[in-house]
This record gives sequence, C-alpha cells and structure tokens, in this order.
Amino acid sequence: MIEHPAFTVDEWSIIEKTFRLDLLAQTESLFALSNGHIGLRGNLDEGEPYGLPGTYLNSVYELHPLPYAEAQYGSPESAQTMINVTNGKLIRLLVDDEPFDIRYGELKIHKRELDMRNGVLQRQVRWTSPVGRTVKISSTRMVSFTLRNTAAICYEVEVEDAPAHIVIQSELVANEEHSGSSDDPRSSTVATPPLISEEHQAHKMMGLLVHRTQQSNLRIAAAMDHVVEGLDTANVTSESTLDVARFSVTTEIKPGERIRIIKFLSYGWSAERSRSALHDQVMAGISSARQLGWDGLLAQQRAYLDKFWESAVVEVEGDPEIQQAVRFALFHILQAGSRSERRAIPAKGLTGSGYEGHAFWDTEIFVLPVLSFILPQATADALHWRYSTLDLAKKRARQLDLQGAAFPWRTIVGEECSGYWPASTAAFHINADIAHAVLRYVEATGDTDFEEKIGLELLVETARLWQSLGHYDSAGRFRIDGVTGPDEYSAISNNNAYTNLMAQQNLQAAADAAQRHHARARTLGVKSNEIKDWENAAKKMLLPYDERLKVIPQSESFTELQVWDFDATTPEQYPLFLHFPYFDLYRKQVIKQADLLLAMQLRNNIFTLEEKERNFAYYEPLTVRDSSLSACTQAIIAAEVGHISLAYDYLGEAALMDLDNLEHNAQDGVHIASLGGSWLALVMGLGGLRYNTKGLYFKPCLPEQITRLNFRMLYRDRRLLVEVRPTEATYHLLAGKDLPLSHYDKEFILSTHKSVTHKIVPHTDGPRPSQPRGRAPMERGKRRRS
Amino acid sequence: MIEHPAFTVDEWSIIEKTFRLDLLAQTESLFALSNGHIGLRGNLDEGEPYGLPGTYLNSVYELHPLPYAEAQYGSPESAQTMINVTNGKLIRLLVDDEPFDIRYGELKIHKRELDMRNGVLQRQVRWTSPVGRTVKISSTRMVSFTLRNTAAICYEVEVEDAPAHIVIQSELVANEEHSGSSDDPRSSTVATPPLISEEHQAHKMMGLLVHRTQQSNLRIAAAMDHVVEGLDTANVTSESTLDVARFSVTTEIKPGERIRIIKFLSYGWSAERSRSALHDQVMAGISSARQLGWDGLLAQQRAYLDKFWESAVVEVEGDPEIQQAVRFALFHILQAGSRSERRAIPAKGLTGSGYEGHAFWDTEIFVLPVLSFILPQATADALHWRYSTLDLAKKRARQLDLQGAAFPWRTIVGEECSGYWPASTAAFHINADIAHAVLRYVEATGDTDFEEKIGLELLVETARLWQSLGHYDSAGRFRIDGVTGPDEYSAISNNNAYTNLMAQQNLQAAADAAQRHHARARTLGVKSNEIKDWENAAKKMLLPYDERLKVIPQSESFTELQVWDFDATTPEQYPLFLHFPYFDLYRKQVIKQADLLLAMQLRNNIFTLEEKERNFAYYEPLTVRDSSLSACTQAIIAAEVGHISLAYDYLGEAALMDLDNLEHNAQDGVHIASLGGSWLALVMGLGGLRYNTKGLYFKPCLPEQITRLNFRMLYRDRRLLVEVRPTEATYHLLAGKDLPLSHYDKEFILSTHKSVTHKIVPHTDGPRPSQPRGRAPMERGKRRRS
Repeated sequence: MIEHPAFTVDEWSIIEKTFRLDLLAQTESLFALSNGHIGLRGNLDEGEPYGLPGTYLNSVYELHPLPYAEAQYGSPESAQTMINVTNGKLIRLLVDDEPFDIRYGELKIHKRELDMRNGVLQRQVRWTSPVGRTVKISSTRMVSFTLRNTAAICYEVEVEDAPAHIVIQSELVANEEHSGSSDDPRSSTVATPPLISEEHQAHKMMGLLVHRTQQSNLRIAAAMDHVVEGLDTANVTSESTLDVARFSVTTEIKPGERIRIIKFLSYGWSAERSRSALHDQVMAGISSARQLGWDGLLAQQRAYLDKFWESAVVEVEGDPEIQQAVRFALFHILQAGSRSERRAIPAKGLTGSGYEGHAFWDTEIFVLPVLSFILPQATADALHWRYSTLDLAKKRARQLDLQGAAFPWRTIVGEECSGYWPASTAAFHINADIAHAVLRYVEATGDTDFEEKIGLELLVETARLWQSLGHYDSAGRFRIDGVTGPDEYSAISNNNAYTNLMAQQNLQAAADAAQRHHARARTLGVKSNEIKDWENAAKKMLLPYDERLKVIPQSESFTELQVWDFDATTPEQYPLFLHFPYFDLYRKQVIKQADLLLAMQLRNNIFTLEEKERNFAYYEPLTVRDSSLSACTQAIIAAEVGHISLAYDYLGEAALMDLDNLEHNAQDGVHIASLGGSWLALVMGLGGLRYNTKGLYFKPCLPEQITRLNFRMLYRDRRLLVEVRPTEATYHLLAGKDLPLSHYDKEFILSTHKSVTHKIVPHTDGPRPSQPRGRAPMERGKRRRS
Repeated sequence: MIEHPAFTVDEWSIIEKTFRLDLLAQTESLFALSNGHIGLRGNLDEGEPYGLPGTYLNSVYELHPLPYAEAQYGSPESAQTMINVTNGKLIRLLVDDEPFDIRYGELKIHKRELDMRNGVLQRQVRWTSPVGRTVKISSTRMVSFTLRNTAAICYEVEVEDAPAHIVIQSELVANEEHSGSSDDPRSSTVATPPLISEEHQAHKMMGLLVHRTQQSNLRIAAAMDHVVEGLDTANVTSESTLDVARFSVTTEIKPGERIRIIKFLSYGWSAERSRSALHDQVMAGISSARQLGWDGLLAQQRAYLDKFWESAVVEVEGDPEIQQAVRFALFHILQAGSRSERRAIPAKGLTGSGYEGHAFWDTEIFVLPVLSFILPQATADALHWRYSTLDLAKKRARQLDLQGAAFPWRTIVGEECSGYWPASTAAFHINADIAHAVLRYVEATGDTDFEEKIGLELLVETARLWQSLGHYDSAGRFRIDGVTGPDEYSAISNNNAYTNLMAQQNLQAAADAAQRHHARARTLGVKSNEIKDWENAAKKMLLPYDERLKVIPQSESFTELQVWDFDATTPEQYPLFLHFPYFDLYRKQVIKQADLLLAMQLRNNIFTLEEKERNFAYYEPLTVRDSSLSACTQAIIAAEVGHISLAYDYLGEAALMDLDNLEHNAQDGVHIASLGGSWLALVMGLGGLRYNTKGLYFKPCLPEQITRLNFRMLYRDRRLLVEVRPTEATYHLLAGKDLPLSHYDKEFILSTHKSVTHKIVPHTDGPRPSQPRGRAPMERGKRRRS
C-alpha cells in the first residue's frame, strides 16, 4: 500500500495524503488505535463510508454455535467471536443541513497520520459541500496507554468564505448496522446476536449506554462527556434511546472562527459486575479523563511512548521504508499488548475482526519473544492469561483422553473455538509453544518469581500432555504420531520434527524447572519418577532423518511425498488453500509456512550450520508463503546460512505485510505476529541474535543497502543498544550491570562505561536458492522507492 | 432381537408373536417391503404408534445445505437426503367410534410375519377396544417385484360377540408429521422442506396426490384404488385436500361377517415429466394392478420368488437361526436390488432413512459380489447406475485437480454428499471398489458385452484417477499418499495396503480390458503409452512391509503407532467414535473394521497362507468391529487360516446384525452390506469359495455344529449346488454346460448328469486368537437357543 501515491514514508508516522475508498478497510486496520484493552478501528469520525466498523474491548465476545456436516465426539459445540461493541468514535457533522460525507461534494484535502511518537491518529480535511460551502475539519483521536479505560477525540471545525450553520452530533451507538461479508475463511463471517440494552442516559454533555450480550452474558458500558470551546451561541442538546446516546451542538460560525469539541470516552465490561457498578465505573473513568484534560492525556501518552521507544527504538539507515515499517510493527505490538493485562493478545490485536478475534499459537512464538525484550511485563501478562485458562485446558485434555493441559488452538477466553480439528486440536505444538514462551521470557528477564508461580505449572502440565501423547516404539524411540505442525499444508502426520523438538524442549524444561522449584513442584504432584519420565521421553524423542537426502523431513515420510506441481500452478491460484482441497495439499511436498525452519530458529543450538544449510536448501523451493507467519523465519535462517540478500527480501515482506497488504486481508486487521516477526527478522536475522539461559549471542551481518542498523532491547534489567555497520558492530550498555555477550562466538563483557566494537568479516552471498515459481520474495533493491 | 420371546425362528419367515413398543422402530426396518424402487417400512397399517414412518422411492431426495465451521475449497455445499414420500400404506379403523390403536384397549393377539417365499408381510390382530368391543384384523401387504410401481394391501376386519359400527379410512398422506431425532451421526437428522402440492383428487374409490420437492425439483405422484368385498350396506365416500386423499367405508358388521378391502397403490416420480404425464402414469399403474387383481399379484410375486430361491437358496443344517438369518439377508438384498434398475442401492436399501439414504462403497464390495451369483442382472443395473454418474465423477476429479473419475463417497444421484473429507474424499478406494465389482461381475457372468460397453470405461477412468493420484518415489516405487482406507479409525495415511492393492488391481484390469477391447478403448482416448503407464504403476505399486514383525502394516508406519489401550476401555465406550475424538483413533493401532483383511479377501491369490496367518494373528487383537462391515471379512479370513469355530462366530454376528440389532441402529434401516456379508461369510468362509477369471475354487470346512451346508449359485449361465458335509462335499451342476471346478486345489469337471463328491480332510482349530477386551464375537455354541 505504501506503493500507493496516497502514502509517503515517514520515520515516525504513517501518512495518508489522499482518500481512496478501495483502501478504506485496510487503512482502518493500519490506523486502528488500541491499548490492548480498547480497540478503535480507524473508521472515519463521521462513521461513513466504512470498510468495517469496529470498536472492540479485549475479551468481549459472543457465542455462536459451530455447525458440522457430520457430528463428531470432542468437537466444540460453540465458539467465541469478538464483537463490535458500542461505537464511541462517532462524530457527525452537518454543514448548512448537508451531512458531511466525503462521497459527496468535493474533498480538497484529506490527510491522515498515525503519529507513533505521540500515540494519536490525526486527520485533516478540507471539503466543499455539494452546495459549495467549504469547511476545514481536523480531528485527533487517541486511546490512552495510561488510562486503560479511556479514549478521547479532539474535533475541530472551521468554515471558509462565509458563515455557515453547523450541527455536530457526537454519539454512542450500539448495534451498529453494517453490510457485507467475505468468503475468505480467515475473515470473520459470523453474525452475532444484537446487544440487549440495559440502560441509556443523556444529560447535559454526557451520555451513557449499558448493554448485555445474549449468549455469553457479558455486560458492556460506554460513557462519553464533552468539552466544547469557541462557542457562544451554541445550542447544546442531548438525548438517548436504547442503542444511541447523542450530544448535539448547533451553531453558526464565521470564517476565522473555530469550533472545538473534546470528547472523552470511557469503556467498561464485566461478566460479574452489576449494571450500576459498571455505570459508576465508566462515569468514574470519564471524571478522571476530564480532570486530566485533553492536554494532560496527550502529555501522558507522549511520556509513555518516549519511555517505550527508549527501550525499543530501531534505526535502519539506508532503508527508510523498513525503518518505518518496523516502527509501525513495534507500535502495533505495543498497542496489542501494553494494557491487555491478563487477557489474550489476538492474532489481529484489536484492529479488526479477522479470525473472529481469536488468539493463536503465533502470539507465543512471534509476539511474546519480542515483547520480552521491549516490554517484558506484557509478556508476563499474556502468559498470565494462558495460566488463567489452565483449568479449561486440563478439562480439554481430559475430554481428549490425555493428561496435563491441552490449550486451545483458537480462543478468546480459553475454550477451543475451532471446528476443524486436523488443523487445530491436532496442532498440539501450541502447548510446547506456550512452554517455549515461558522459557524465553524467563531467559530474557531472569524473572524466577514468575517461573516458580506461573511458569512451572505451565511447563508441568504441558509436559504431562506430551508424556501422554507420545509413546515408545519397539526401538525405544519416543514417537508423537498423528499431529499437525505449524505448516498448515500438512496435517495429521507422524513425528513432525518441529513438534517433537519443541515437545522435547518442553519436557526437559519441565524437568529442569521442577528440580529448581521442587517445593512448588511437589504441590503440583510432581514426583521424581515423573521427572525421570520427562527426561527420558526428551532423551529418546524421535527426530526423523532422510539418510539419502541428508535432511530432516518435516514429518516422517515427508520427503517421500510427491512434490507439488509448482510449474503448473498459476499466480491466481495462490493462496493455494482457496483453490485446492486440503486433501491434495496435505499429501504433497508443499509448505505454507516455515515449519522445520522455525524449529531451527527456536532450537538453533541443536543443529550444525551444515545441517541448517542443507535443510534450508531443501525446504526453500517447497515453501510458498501462503501464510504471514513464514517470511520472518525464512529471513532469520537465510541470514544464518549466509543468504543475507535473501534474508533482507524476506525481512521486507514480513515488515510490509500490512502496509503493502501482501496477504490481501489487512482489511480484517493487522497481522500482529508478522509484525512481531519483522522485529525478529531484523534483530535475529540481520542482527544475528540468539539467546538461551546462558546469555545473548550476536552474529550481525548487513545487506549492502543498509548502512547502519541500531536496535535497543531490555535484557535482565539492562538496557542495551546494538549498532551494526557493514564491517563492525558496537555494543552499548545504556543501563544496568555488566553483561557478558558474544560476538561471532567471541565472548566479552559489556559495561555501561565502555562500549565495545567488534569487526564483522566481509561476507558474500552464495548462489541464491530458488523458491517455487512466482513465489520468490520481491527483491528489496528493485522495489524501493525514493 | 431373535432372542426375544416375541420372535420365533422359522425357516422361511420372520415371525413376531407379541407387540413390543420398544422394538417397533427395529421391526419396521426388518419388516420393510421393497422392490428396490418402492420401499415401505413395516409401519403399522393405522400409522400409529410408529418408530419412524417411512415410504421411499429410490432416488427421490431433497437437497439441504452442508454447514461447515470452517469453509474449505472443494467441500460440497449441499447434500442429498432421501425423503419420506406420500404414505400410501395408511388404513385407519374406527370401531364404534373408537380409533383402533394398540396403545389403548387390549391387544389380545399380535402376530406379524415376513413371508420370504410369498414376498408379503402378514399381520394378525385380535383387539378389544376400551369399551369392550373385540375385533379381528388381518392385513397382507406387498410391494410387487413384477409390477415395479405397484404395492397392494389386503385388509380384513371381523367382529366378535356383537355387531359393530365400523369405519375404515384408506389414505394417501404427504408431509407426514413425525417427531424425534437422534444424536447418532449414522442416522438421518436432516429436516427436509415439505413437499409442495401440485394436484389432489379423490373420486369413487380412488385417490391421487401429486407433489413436488422444493430444492431438488422432483415430482412425485401416488395413486390408490380399492376393491371392497363383503359390504352390502356400505357407505363409501372419498375426499382430498392438498396433502391427503381419503377413501372411507362406513358400515355395520355382525359376528361372522367380514369386511375386506384390497388397496392398490401406484407410485411414480420424475425430474423431467409433467404433472399430467405423472398423473397418467400412476393411474395406468393402478389399472394394471386392478386388472391383475390381488390374487394375480400374489401369484406373480410367488412365481418371482420361486425362481429367485431356485438359484439362491441356502440350507444350513444344525443352525436354524443362521439358516433363517441368511435367507432374511438374501431376501433383503433381493428387495434392495431387484428393481432398482440403474439407480443406487443405498446402504440401508429402502428400509429406513439411516445414512440419509446414501449409497457407499460397501454396495460394490459386499452386495454386488453376492448379487452377481444370485441375481446378476441387478449387479449390472447397479454398475449401470455408477456409469450414469461418470460425468459427475469426472467433474469431481477435475475439481480435486485429478484425472479420470473420482466417485463420491456417499450419494444418491452422484454428487459427493459428505462434509467430512478425511473420511470421504480421501477414501479414494471407492473407485477401485467399483472397478473390483466390475471385474467380479464379468468373472461371474462372462458378460463381455457389459465389459466392453460399461465396464471398460469405468475401469479406464478409475485407472486414470490412480495414475494421477500416485507418484513414483526416489526408489521407483509407486506411492499413494494421504488417503483413507476402509478402516474408519484411520485416515489420511500413506500407502494404505488395501488402497494400493486395489488400485493395483484396478490399473492392471484397465490395461487388460483396454487391450481386449482396443477399438472401444481408442474411443476413450486410451493410447498404448497410457496402458504401459498403468501396467508400470501396477507393477511398481508400493506395498508396505514390517520386516521386524513380518506383517503388512495396514498403512505405512501403522505398526509403529501406539496400540489402543483396550484394557482401559469399558464396554460402554463402544462404539469408540461416540466416546473418543477421531484425532485419537487415527493415531493409534485400533481398527474399526477389517482393512488389510479385506485386501486379503479380495486379492487372496497374492498372499501366501503363511502371510495370511501372520497378518490375521496381528490384526485380530486390534479390531474392535465398531462397524457392521467387519465380521463377515473376519469370518472369511478366519476360516481360511483354519479358525473355523471363530469364523462361525463371526458369521453369526454378520448374519444377525439386524435381527439381533447388534449395532443398535437397525431402527434406521437394515444393513444391506452386512446382510450381503453374511452370504459371503457362509459361502466364502465355510464354503471356502474363491474365484477369478479362470474359475471357481472351493475349500469348504464346517464347524462342528453345522452338519450340512447347501448353497446354490449362478455362474456363467450355469446353476450350481454345493452340498457340504463335515467330511465331504458334493458338487451338483443343476443346469448349464460342463464346468471345471477346484476342490482343495484338486481340479475336476462337473456336468449336469453327474454330481461329484470330494473328501474334506478333518480339521482341528489351533489356539483361538484373542480380540480386544470385551470385543470377542459371541460364541455360537453358547448363545444358540432351541
């Protein structure tokens, strides 16, 4: 999308300069504001036109029945869907009785800017109505990082040429109508029953609506209040009905005058609290926001972000597009995770209803490892959420005749919400992924208190799952059969290498942690025999190997399968799952997303470089990247095995997934995991970062286009800055105690009083490996614009 | 069910002596009458009480949408469901204004008898109304084998003690109400939209209804006419409304008098023909039936059955229960196939709505091989039906990106109707099963004209499917990956032995037939290269083998999977698929139904006896028989490997599947394939019959309880009788040219003028193999009643 002349590249902002109706849904996702608790899509203030209206509260969902053509034991009967709650963003404008609607009249200026340093969405419009009256509108919208329940909008109107009669209607609207649906299974297509009104109120400049969901029985309250400036002659009214609270300002303004309305919004929801308690809660939220005032809110927002960027900022010299994209990625990750506070981080954050607002494994694998280095508390919170669903996961395991905990493939509050088990229930790797995120978080933070109280139990219950899911074959190898790995073009395979390796890590980690925290482990019923069982299963874990090809098959027999006929596949037939049946995809060598490569990323130290090279060379021509969760991993491994230019291309693809709408579904929300992956591609790919319990290891290497790469990160109470240039890297410890590090296997100690510079041996890429026909990543050198 | 004192064992009849409401639905299936075109469930004449009201016309279906929790490319959007058409069986009776209803008053005599020699269902009732009036009712119902569109009922009433006022209402009723549904996925749970009335008429003693289905747009006509005897004072009326045509007789009868009504029914349906054409068609049917008269219909029915039994009768001395059961089986197979005439033979015939009236692969594997020997024209017709759907199968193959034809897993008129592809689309073996049925039919009949005109194209298009579905691996072996074999507790496996062996047979048979009929083959575009490709794929077909165990794994790696924990599985947890998720069943060694064993039955000559013994010994303890399609195959292989007593037990289970309701779902219709399997178990199991293009081979051996087994069969224009006694077998050629045969590998020539007797070497069973805990078949010696 950035390719559109409608957009310009800016270091700290995403800027749209002209209005494009066909890009509206996508920009609503890109310009979505969220703090992880409240999510406001970047819908136009006046509500219409829209791509997809969206106002979300984390974990506010409705239940809908899951239909099956053929019923099966163990299939969930209903699923959770994130719902569009009461819309508080709405501010409508009438100019001389003409509704301001950019589809009519003439839009002379349209500019929107997502300002990632100030944490606001700004909009500037100059519009001439069909009868020729010209107005200038500017609005600034924010969802507060510091006041979790609060959003606010500053809306300003001026007229040109001649006085005009102006009506501004600021509203709360529940049960918004919206049309349109999609055939794409990745978007949300579920009709949710309407919210039931419980209370509505309008008084002076405030308004309030309380509603309840029908099936999930959640109560939702939204309140608004206003400050109006520049109005002497204002006629202010307010009114409310079941689904609408409306505050109206009617006035006449002259050229040179400006009317300014500050709208404060407060949201609350609860499964437990009474109507009156929620009523009071949102009114209190409004009071706090009013007291702080618009400028106070802005200042707090800026201060919060300054602190965030201080630990997280990335600088990419030589490629402003990547620089912008990675900052955009970090900003959306922050928005998704900062205040979700023991709720899920969904695949789309709170930026759209794609995937029905569900959280998947990719949060643990692509988002939490990033947050662990830039906003560690958010990782702890997200794992706390998993922990809070442990009882449901244990219940699910019992239903599946397994031990321990079986976490859901997709969910909002913990119950399995998938109706297609070969790609969900069978994808047991999610359990090892959660364990992995625990390990990585503890490694990055040294938070042993978390490990003991939260992490251990997650490790133990997932280890128990693996112990019951696998079995020893006649040769004494521990097999895990009939499961699905990350690659969604394979399913129900035996000994998926990723799954087995991650389960191995999970089992060993549980054994280790149980020994470190033996008192707590005892309260979980862990006995020494069980620890020995885990260690033995880990030790005997089967890892398939193809002796002829000297590569690791993605799953047992994978390398014997027919290779997909890539040459007969046309560009229009991608993504393949929309044009070929799963039976065909599953039975052939065709990979939707990195699977073994991801295992090599996450368990990098058990493979030799030669093994990585051979495996990368084998899988690269089979991987079509029909998933947004592939390019980042391919970037990381490509860099490691010496294909820096290819790694750079993949980095670009990961980073521009949403800005360029590479998956063609950014309208449903941004891809939080791919955004996380772009940081990983940069820092683990070009920066060459690896880490384990012993510390951090760097093997940085830059593509020729990038002249300098700086990235900051938090690590065990230190703040670190790594500055990579083509021939050397400088390590700075910005805060904290001395830190042992490794640069290309050379160990050194870094302290705050002295930066350390190491040489980087010049590198030349070998012959570039091929991808399936038409599926090579776009070359960064070729596509870059000035 | 036969164990119930309500039933007695009879050589030629199924007799029910007392009424059991809890068995009503099951008896409706057992007592269903059909000719393959019309099916009338054994509902009581007066309509209520009922288990499941059912009147079916072969291939009359309605469409309903198939729901999916997650949409996928290639999944059918709608499915066909057999519908309950206009009920013409209904005859209601009022006695002194009390409706005759066996739930009220006192039922003094209740007897129903399915007479398999006369082809009628007889009923005798003696009932005292709540106010004390006693009547005797007898009815005889038939669905004509000779007049395909005709059914008829003879209904008689007498009073005892004192004169009574009698009203008899004979009806046609469309859109019958019925309550109740089931959670069992095997039963039909689909609500079909009501039929739309197009015409209704009542005139004198006749009535007529024409209706149309809403989605499938089929037109259905039903007409009735009556002959009334023994009525001087009758007041006869008739009337009709949209969904009801009613003929009423009102009279007073005295003790010793008898009123008798003959009801003639005619059915017709069409997707093409006009309302008036269908009207005339059923009226013509009524005329034919009336002209023939009740006695004429009965005589034709008897003559038809005499001819059938002359070729098909089985005598089992020493086990009257099996004798009865196998005749019951043959009668229902006859009913299912005799006049279906290029329509499908559904899994339940036309005896109930189970499996939504769909036909599956089991018709080809368990029913057509039987029909080929006892009613070969029915096999030809059934394969003609498959042939008539070839264009749909080719279209489906294109949709799946395959060549040739991909026949549907379940269907009524040819489109795939399954919404769960791992157990349907992936079960490609159905295509080889159809090819197998073609081969077997041609072998049994020598019908080369059929082979050229119909069989060849079926063989060629299925061979093309296999050629495109498989591929050569690096070792040059032809692999078929990611498919599902007959065992429904496994799915999406690589190189399922059954599938590969059947595909091998299919490919070779296509090559052979194309060479025999090269002119016709050329019109199908078959070139010599293609024939070579088929031969090569057949030759290089991979057959998995476990070197350690010396057995053939059901699929690649099967013997490495975890063995199901049978000891931890309670009797209430069977069938397993209602208590465990498929993910768990698929990934373990647990077998729902014979899979490799079926391959050993169908391709018996490529295994040595030692291989069969080893494989049988391996799979027997893993096979739980949660399917009705297993016991017969286990019987056949058990007999072959010398476990005669076990074979006998399995024969009993196959034969009594419906009579004893062993699967607990006979209420939805009888299991036509298991009924076919009981004949196969008897003739291929105890009779030891095998056959191929070269001829028939026998290795008979009886369990000690059976003192004599006679079975008749047709074979290439001969009629054959085999008489097996414990120590010898006598072969009689009842009609036809001299026939070479083989008895225990000893070849001899049989002619009509001289029977041949051969010795049977005395046999002692070895140690009985074990089955999963609680899943051994009931021992025939123990359960038999006098």
